[in-house]
Amino acid sequence: MKVDGIGRRSLHIDPAGDAVWVIDQRRLPFDFDVRRLTLLAEVQRAIAEMWVRGAPLIGVAAAYGIALECRRDASDAALHAAKASLDAARPTAVNLAWASARMLGLLLAMPPAERAAAAWQEAGAMADEDVRVNQAIGRHGLALLRTLSQRNGGRPLQLLTHCNAGWLATVDWGTATAPIYAAHAEGLPVHVWVDETRPRNQGAALTAWELGQQGVPHTLIADNAGGHLMQRGQVDAVIVGCDRVSARGDVGNKIGTYLKALAAHDNGVPFYVAMPLSTLDLSIQDGMTEVRIEQRSEREVTHLWGRTRGGEVLEVELAPTGTRAANPAFDVTPARLVTGLISELGVVPANATALAALAAQAREPT
Amino acid sequence: MKVDGIGRRSLHIDPAGDAVWVIDQRRLPFDFDVRRLTLLAEVQRAIAEMWVRGAPLIGVAAAYGIALECRRDASDAALHAAKASLDAARPTAVNLAWASARMLGLLLAMPPAERAAAAWQEAGAMADEDVRVNQAIGRHGLALLRTLSQRNGGRPLQLLTHCNAGWLATVDWGTATAPIYAAHAEGLPVHVWVDETRPRNQGAALTAWELGQQGVPHTLIADNAGGHLMQRGQVDAVIVGCDRVSARGDVGNKIGTYLKALAAHDNGVPFYVAMPLSTLDLSIQDGMTEVRIEQRSEREVTHLWGRTRGGEVLEVELAPTGTRAANPAFDVTPARLVTGLISELGVVPANATALAALAAQAREPT
Repeated sequence: MKVDGIGRRSLHIDPAGDAVWVIDQRRLPFDFDVRRLTLLAEVQRAIAEMWVRGAPLIGVAAAYGIALECRRDASDAALHAAKASLDAARPTAVNLAWASARMLGLLLAMPPAERAAAAWQEAGAMADEDVRVNQAIGRHGLALLRTLSQRNGGRPLQLLTHCNAGWLATVDWGTATAPIYAAHAEGLPVHVWVDETRPRNQGAALTAWELGQQGVPHTLIADNAGGHLMQRGQVDAVIVGCDRVSARGDVGNKIGTYLKALAAHDNGVPFYVAMPLSTLDLSIQDGMTEVRIEQRSEREVTHLWGRTRGGEVLEVELAPTGTRAANPAFDVTPARLVTGLISELGVVPANATALAALAAQAREPT
Repeated sequence: MKVDGIGRRSLHIDPAGDAVWVIDQRRLPFDFDVRRLTLLAEVQRAIAEMWVRGAPLIGVAAAYGIALECRRDASDAALHAAKASLDAARPTAVNLAWASARMLGLLLAMPPAERAAAAWQEAGAMADEDVRVNQAIGRHGLALLRTLSQRNGGRPLQLLTHCNAGWLATVDWGTATAPIYAAHAEGLPVHVWVDETRPRNQGAALTAWELGQQGVPHTLIADNAGGHLMQRGQVDAVIVGCDRVSARGDVGNKIGTYLKALAAHDNGVPFYVAMPLSTLDLSIQDGMTEVRIEQRSEREVTHLWGRTRGGEVLEVELAPTGTRAANPAFDVTPARLVTGLISELGVVPANATALAALAAQAREPT
């Protein structure tokens, strides 16, 4: 997508094949900093500290982390250690383990001398696949938005999104934003309510920024406001991303998603989840008990980064000094509250039968 | 309640009867500033700019605003103008209009020369009444908490509150916090999950501060986290305040309350609203359409006040410069989601019959 009018991806590589460049998303929306990573440990840190975040993007970043490690040490032991370190960086999103398992499955089957080149190529293939997957999610989601828009009598479609499931959370296009960008591109009028998404403010800092860069009309709201807007008929649909979807359709996503799903259900507002198949975890059934919820630092709740009037970006404290905080980073939305899952293969209901069929379809040779 | 170990009220008066002192709550938790107000216009500004806030406190502050105006001009015209200016300062809470109407009802019936002294006395009576009302809410709420605690097998009772319905929102004790302080005082173990309450952070800035000052165990959470905690069985009850309750029991309160009520309902967690009778508005039925929702400035969403590491309190920007925001300050929780209303006369269900009976009881001579 565009940054200052110039098209780019959220992650790109050195032509020499020895480094990956990522946007330091902690600095957005204040600074657009791109950082060069050359070592597995740097990639691991970039994921753990959320320079890169978003389930699809951390999967691809992890693949590049393994590829970089292969240049240094392509032994089986090094690859297993790389996978363990990457998977532990963020426990909730399944994409990390999915991507690292895919890399190891390929690499362990070949002689170590061939692994570095193959790993680099495979990581690149995964990045390109992510883009294609998101474009397909965009097409399927666009069909939904067209239908909603017809019901809406041509008024701009009012969409609400939580956190950032935008192009910054992927390699390009985003998951939840892909249908929005597709609608905007074809002239279907949309307006996006952007949840701030405390405590890390991915909505205010990232989603508002990227929608602004693409020229999509949007309005920032406190996370508290979405239910009220739905009560007043000001939301036509909710679209969010996901970090892990269970076999029966429970959706692990950014903390607060569940509250928006409850409000959507209470007000008859459709609640859609953009779900690349890489995010479907058929090994778990009950999302409420089986999705491991990452607990992040208290400081993310008690402190916040912002820009002063003078342009300085600094951290301020919000609560009385010494206040304790709890910071679960994700929650699980039960399948019963989900209207549909928008995958690259189409839109399916959130239930075990539909998801098993979808997974079977994905395994068929194309 | 206590500040640095010293008991005080959130509002007190000059012995000479010519000024009222209030805490500038915009400065908390960073500075404890007390300000002297001597003119109606100053009181009006203090309410509109939220130096004082909270439905019960702004009612009492408004009464003092009228009393101060009486010293300057006690004519009928001046009193009507004073009421109009105060009522407009914050449109959602009914207490403002309730308090100003009570003052005018008394004062307009007496000769102008007697009004200043009578007004000062009546405002004082209202402040004292507020304290008694909150103590009564504390007693009735404590009985509920004792029952919940018995079911809980003696583990600390886990309560969740939204915004600040604490002593800072009243003259003393608070509404939602009164049962909590009563429980803490008698040794019933409680722990409070404190919703940050974006965009003005009354939870992080005020509730965390006052609970800390009284020594009540508490943990700050993002507004997004409460639903997850309820899913995991970590909340035994929700207690919030209110700004206006309709005849059928719909509850107007701080934006985001509705989302917590939905989550409580979805997880079988009791949802209680502390409701002084001054907050009951029998003139409206359907809270969803009849409670006027105050829309506050975009800047409250896009910017935030905090304290730097160096101790400076300043405003920082959170979103890309120029981002538009919407800021509805209240929402309405439908009666069907409310387990009970804790009034000074006892706990009642949120329905028209119970509220009509409660209002009739309140009108009986005691």
